[in-house]
Amino acid sequence: MTSSYMRRALALAKRGLGHTSPNPMVGAVLVDNQGRIVAEGYHKKAGSAHAEAAALKKAGEKAHGTTLYVTLEPCNHTGRTPPCTDAIIKSGVQRVVVAAVDPNPYVAGGGVERLEAAGVEVLVGDGAEEAWELNRAFFTWSQRHRPWVTLKAAMTLDGKVASVNGQSKYLTSEAALQHAHELRRTHDAILVGSSTVLADNPSLTYRGSRNGHDPVRVVLDGRGRIPATSQVFQNQSHAPTLVFSSEDAPSSWERDIFSAGGEVVMVGRNPDGLLDLSEVLGYLADRHILSLLVEGGPTVHASFIQHQLADAWVGYLAPLILGGQSAPSPVAGPGFDLGTAPRLTMEDTRRLGPDIVYEARFHSVRNEDTDVYRTN
Amino acid sequence: MTSSYMRRALALAKRGLGHTSPNPMVGAVLVDNQGRIVAEGYHKKAGSAHAEAAALKKAGEKAHGTTLYVTLEPCNHTGRTPPCTDAIIKSGVQRVVVAAVDPNPYVAGGGVERLEAAGVEVLVGDGAEEAWELNRAFFTWSQRHRPWVTLKAAMTLDGKVASVNGQSKYLTSEAALQHAHELRRTHDAILVGSSTVLADNPSLTYRGSRNGHDPVRVVLDGRGRIPATSQVFQNQSHAPTLVFSSEDAPSSWERDIFSAGGEVVMVGRNPDGLLDLSEVLGYLADRHILSLLVEGGPTVHASFIQHQLADAWVGYLAPLILGGQSAPSPVAGPGFDLGTAPRLTMEDTRRLGPDIVYEARFHSVRNEDTDVYRTN
Repeated sequence: MTSSYMRRALALAKRGLGHTSPNPMVGAVLVDNQGRIVAEGYHKKAGSAHAEAAALKKAGEKAHGTTLYVTLEPCNHTGRTPPCTDAIIKSGVQRVVVAAVDPNPYVAGGGVERLEAAGVEVLVGDGAEEAWELNRAFFTWSQRHRPWVTLKAAMTLDGKVASVNGQSKYLTSEAALQHAHELRRTHDAILVGSSTVLADNPSLTYRGSRNGHDPVRVVLDGRGRIPATSQVFQNQSHAPTLVFSSEDAPSSWERDIFSAGGEVVMVGRNPDGLLDLSEVLGYLADRHILSLLVEGGPTVHASFIQHQLADAWVGYLAPLILGGQSAPSPVAGPGFDLGTAPRLTMEDTRRLGPDIVYEARFHSVRNEDTDVYRTN
Repeated sequence: MTSSYMRRALALAKRGLGHTSPNPMVGAVLVDNQGRIVAEGYHKKAGSAHAEAAALKKAGEKAHGTTLYVTLEPCNHTGRTPPCTDAIIKSGVQRVVVAAVDPNPYVAGGGVERLEAAGVEVLVGDGAEEAWELNRAFFTWSQRHRPWVTLKAAMTLDGKVASVNGQSKYLTSEAALQHAHELRRTHDAILVGSSTVLADNPSLTYRGSRNGHDPVRVVLDGRGRIPATSQVFQNQSHAPTLVFSSEDAPSSWERDIFSAGGEVVMVGRNPDGLLDLSEVLGYLADRHILSLLVEGGPTVHASFIQHQLADAWVGYLAPLILGGQSAPSPVAGPGFDLGTAPRLTMEDTRRLGPDIVYEARFHSVRNEDTDVYRTN
């Protein structure tokens, strides 16, 4: 159940999409006892005012006796901004309706308790589903100490990502390429395997039409194969480029990458010889990367799925047939049995020019440790 | 441009879906000079009255001075029923509006000319697009002497039709399986390769919930590999089973198939060693099969596409990941270059329970020889 005021607060929160990380997107609405909206606010970007603070500031005296609808539990600690709980209590707000509690270990629960201790009535759970959805990356990062992981793949009607002789540029239309750039804009980092760098030499920057930043660029290269002259190290972007590698990489290569402006991060290997993705994701979480877009190739996708480290799948279906027994599909690796194959739920399907885009969620997502529903 | 009367006639025509073959679906509406519908009719099944005849019979005297909207050019020859042109002229209909001319070589154009010669005003082209779409199988069969060919494939989100160890039953949900059965009901024949018979031993019958007939069963088996005990020869269906083969098949196998109730038809081979599909389709056209549903496997699909003998693609996308470099995709064969790969146009995409179904048209369809637009 989501009230119309909370829906408004959620819509406001969304305006911060692509700008708030590593903070969550938050929206707030102050409503007087005649049901009129007195003031609104949202978190514009990391470092700027929190949503509640922005709304309270606009309302001034009029905040007294109102109900505050806020999409996330107000913070109770001093970060770059003072605690919102204090501002709420001081303003004379009578009641606070919270969509989801804050799972961040530095905050968890403290906001609600502090408000209640000060005599403010608090209700939790109005719009909890939508609030989780909105900040799925923030919640995943807070609770699992890893980014939200989206796998992306463009394939033909017959399931191929490239022709038998390796051609893959471009299967999809301009409309689909623009959509893919919006994915880059709304993820903190983008990851590819070394084979993709060697085959396509991508720059991995955001080249969409909106005001957005480049994602952090991440390459998995266990053996140190990518040259220091690769596009990902070129200076057209201020975004750093992290290369995860292992002790198998030559040290001369490591120096070359460093000289080219890349950062090499050593991690362990799994029994299958691939880099330990939990370690990679933990490091990215340490760097305040809340969301990661994985653009393949097939071996990289397979590794994320096998280790249950994938949350979402975005697929593009291009209306052509490439055929060929040996032409690659988007997921390689050893494969799964039908009985134990990872299952997903389709979230959205739509046309993008001549293509189709479909989004799906892995079933491992939203497990029991995701406790945003805790109600008081 | 389609008038509302023609839209009504097209809707009536559709009621015959799955029952009229080898005749086209046809609908007819009689409208008086006040714009009121006087009578309607449609072709219910092969052997029963034509749409125009049905409408005229219902109208009786009231047909005099009306306009007849009919989705296909009225016939001018005596088949199982007398020519509709005579009935129209006799009834005193003043004007005939035709959506598409009849491309059937036994009819072609004769109807319009005969009516005009008798002083009936004729207009052609109202709803021509929809009329072609409605009877795409009939038009293809009439003009190219081959059935309309639909390729069908169910694959996972990552483009696999089976797991690395060959499991494929079932990737999709009950809703998708029902949809696939409706495809069987609305095609005159269904075709699979011998590998599919050997792997899955399907019965290839219609097991949907509606009143419908089993399609003719067709198997491609150039080397005579399928056993006479296969389900396709079992008597749960009155539909014949045709097995296309070549001189490489052992004659003892041919006798066994014959004894099991199957018909073996010998055709030539292409340079690639696969059966000559033009010959197969020509034979099916001779048997009055207007539409063919090809249910794979990957080699069979590839062969139809390579020889430009595919008109439509119906794909099911099941929300699971099977992965695996060697797991098969829906189209095998040698594969295509990106530049010369066959292109399609997406026609429809929708959810079917947890799955997605998408329909696309090969661009070779509707070439210049499809002259239903000829206007007078």
